[in-house]
Amino acid sequence: MVTTLGICAPGAMGSAIGACAVATGHRVVWASQGRSRDTVARAEEDGLTDVGDLGALLETSDVVLSVCPPHAAVDVAAEIAAHGYAGTVIDANAISPATMGRVQRTLASGGATVVDASIVGPPPRGEDRTRLFLAGAGAERFAALFADAPLHIVDLHAAPPAASALKMAYAAWSKGSAGLLFAVRAYASHAGVEDALLDEWERSQPDLAERSDRQAADAGPKAWRWVAEMEEIAATLDDASLPDGFHHAAAEVFHRLRGHRGGPPPAIEDVVADLLDPPTDD
Amino acid sequence: MVTTLGICAPGAMGSAIGACAVATGHRVVWASQGRSRDTVARAEEDGLTDVGDLGALLETSDVVLSVCPPHAAVDVAAEIAAHGYAGTVIDANAISPATMGRVQRTLASGGATVVDASIVGPPPRGEDRTRLFLAGAGAERFAALFADAPLHIVDLHAAPPAASALKMAYAAWSKGSAGLLFAVRAYASHAGVEDALLDEWERSQPDLAERSDRQAADAGPKAWRWVAEMEEIAATLDDASLPDGFHHAAAEVFHRLRGHRGGPPPAIEDVVADLLDPPTDD
Repeated sequence: MVTTLGICAPGAMGSAIGACAVATGHRVVWASQGRSRDTVARAEEDGLTDVGDLGALLETSDVVLSVCPPHAAVDVAAEIAAHGYAGTVIDANAISPATMGRVQRTLASGGATVVDASIVGPPPRGEDRTRLFLAGAGAERFAALFADAPLHIVDLHAAPPAASALKMAYAAWSKGSAGLLFAVRAYASHAGVEDALLDEWERSQPDLAERSDRQAADAGPKAWRWVAEMEEIAATLDDASLPDGFHHAAAEVFHRLRGHRGGPPPAIEDVVADLLDPPTDD
Repeated sequence: MVTTLGICAPGAMGSAIGACAVATGHRVVWASQGRSRDTVARAEEDGLTDVGDLGALLETSDVVLSVCPPHAAVDVAAEIAAHGYAGTVIDANAISPATMGRVQRTLASGGATVVDASIVGPPPRGEDRTRLFLAGAGAERFAALFADAPLHIVDLHAAPPAASALKMAYAAWSKGSAGLLFAVRAYASHAGVEDALLDEWERSQPDLAERSDRQAADAGPKAWRWVAEMEEIAATLDDASLPDGFHHAAAEVFHRLRGHRGGPPPAIEDVVADLLDPPTDD
């Protein structure tokens, strides 16, 4: 039975998942070393126990959860392997099957076993809108941690990397189409046909104006970490001999929006302005 | 006043537009030279008068309408110019502002003036779902042809190429997102997670499964001519310094579906099969 769950580098998602396990009576530990004050405050509020550094976290955890920005997934696996951790790691990152394979091999080199996982939905905060997909041996053991939590555990009863593949397919539409929509709005503005486009959408695609606004607000603050996710999806489609251009383009769109990290939800007009006059701060 | 409308190379769209003008009491002419028996039969049914060849068409027309597959737009303009036609040409093709500029210069070399136009919606057949957008001098004159027809004329009261730009923006989403959706379905099938994706869509994106089916049926038979339209849109976005990859990818998706030209509406499963195992007939 799992008694202690360790969460590597919890962001908004990891911390909320930790809170779910705390609420169902488990001990959840994390390592505050090198993390921001905001992260510390959030982890405290979520009832996570700070054990200091990664070595201490690995020593006390029955199961470790890795949920981080996609570009950091392999590095996190390498840090865990460097400690010789021989337990179970749930990798819930938005990464391609190929990257999942690299994570698996990296962790195996340190002695760990891996459960392929992925997440769809917002950080689980009581509304039961978040699914955590699991593929592979060990899934049931992890699922028991969240039996009564506002986090719906879906055991795919499939071999890895089914959970990563599902996430790639899901986000390929949900985020890829958001990037496309932003590019369309930016072009219409550039060409001076925005009012005419919104009039035509009102007639024939009545959800798109509202969708532009809603997705601008949602995507803006997260765009910085969606860049790597789009590149993971592009690589995933290319590995399947499908066109990878949708998601390279979406990566470029989100890259131009990186300045909204940590800021308030932008309006579609702010998104359009960034796409047409990209920031040059790096 | 316009009394005779000439329609260059009428396909399903051009023939239906011609029928609208016939219904409002105008003479509509076309040239059957080199066209298929199906086209001849459709034009006869729509009340279009066959004048034989392009030269005769240009001689008798007050206004000429060009509506053809996007890849043929400049060639059609060149044929008209080669006849020294000095009247008005309405170019309603789905082409980029840059291609519209080439059409305009080509026609001007023969003496013609051009009205920038574009079409959104299906061939107008009595349901009033189709809009024809016009930009530039001469728009009102053409609009009078369709005063009572099931074709909604929208004068953008803007300089060219506003109508072409609007079409690019509109189709960038409507067709670009269809291409993305097909690629996502193909990947999910390839990776063996199609059932899991459809389950998750049922929970959180309940319109997408039905949309896949509907857009597969709609796009399949037209995909062969959407390839060039997607390339026009890619060039349009690139000219605006926006990412062009979405529509290069969509062009590749529709290229793989070209075998459905003239066939029955395919199921999404047929579309997926073509994307994963592209035809190699050319």
